[in-house]
Amino acid sequence: MDVFWCKGFEATSLADLLKATGLSKSSLYATFGGKRELFVAAFDAYREERAREMHQILVRAPAREAIEHFFRKIVTDAGNGDTSRGCMSINQAVEMAPRDADIRTRVFQDFALIEGALALAIERGQAEGSVKNTKSALNLARLLVLGFPGLQVMVRAGGDKSLLDETLNLLLSILD
Amino acid sequence: MDVFWCKGFEATSLADLLKATGLSKSSLYATFGGKRELFVAAFDAYREERAREMHQILVRAPAREAIEHFFRKIVTDAGNGDTSRGCMSINQAVEMAPRDADIRTRVFQDFALIEGALALAIERGQAEGSVKNTKSALNLARLLVLGFPGLQVMVRAGGDKSLLDETLNLLLSILD
Repeated sequence: MDVFWCKGFEATSLADLLKATGLSKSSLYATFGGKRELFVAAFDAYREERAREMHQILVRAPAREAIEHFFRKIVTDAGNGDTSRGCMSINQAVEMAPRDADIRTRVFQDFALIEGALALAIERGQAEGSVKNTKSALNLARLLVLGFPGLQVMVRAGGDKSLLDETLNLLLSILD
Repeated sequence: MDVFWCKGFEATSLADLLKATGLSKSSLYATFGGKRELFVAAFDAYREERAREMHQILVRAPAREAIEHFFRKIVTDAGNGDTSRGCMSINQAVEMAPRDADIRTRVFQDFALIEGALALAIERGQAEGSVKNTKSALNLARLLVLGFPGLQVMVRAGGDKSLLDETLNLLLSILD
């Protein structure tokens, strides 16, 4: 997962995969079938992990803080020494979704999942008063989701931490 | 330019480039030096063309309509039969910027260029009354720019046209 996440699909070589998994070529093929199959399995493992993490964060109270924490984590993770990998779903929206229907379906499922989870959190925030903006929770969620690739792209392209923080504050200000 | 735009850097083969340019391998290398050099030249040609187009659109009046036209074009272009290629700068923010400083510099220059041009148009719109929101023009521009990769990613991943239109309306509503 880490190799595909950092390098994308095309730039990952068989040698990279053998090194990362510690498998021989024959057992890699016997276990996964091929590079694309291994990629899809890695991508699904990534998606499941991120979805679980997102739900754990977004159920917290107050909702406004939970939402901020969810987005702040993207920026914080980017500064963790590790090279800036961004979000694997968004990387794949760019790299593989245009030519691979299975990946495209997964990418749009991920967008919908984040939108739905954010809309619920915003509704909760409006009810408890932590989210001041009274516009449609779904529309606010969609605006946040629309800003998500922008943040991720800045993270992956190695954007400056303080610029990222400022940009995030601006995005979250639509909740106020 | 078209080949790199559609396929990205890694997935473009030498055979693709020879076919697209009509050059022999030796004259391609003699003219451009190598695949990466050819890519950078193609990317710069793309950036210049898009920048010129952006400025031509954004100077029109009223400013609110000019801004809407600029964004609408992204969505319209996506439906032009041609495969969904998205924006080459954003594709490269994902593919090459993390590991190539020259590309990274270009990507951030492009973000800054769009932000500056939109901020000027928004200021003009606020002065003439076509942009109702009186918040800082620069902050509004930055929010629009932040939404730009989201739109592009949806376009490139093959998002449904009516979903894209709705999303765009929502993004532009921050000007009102």
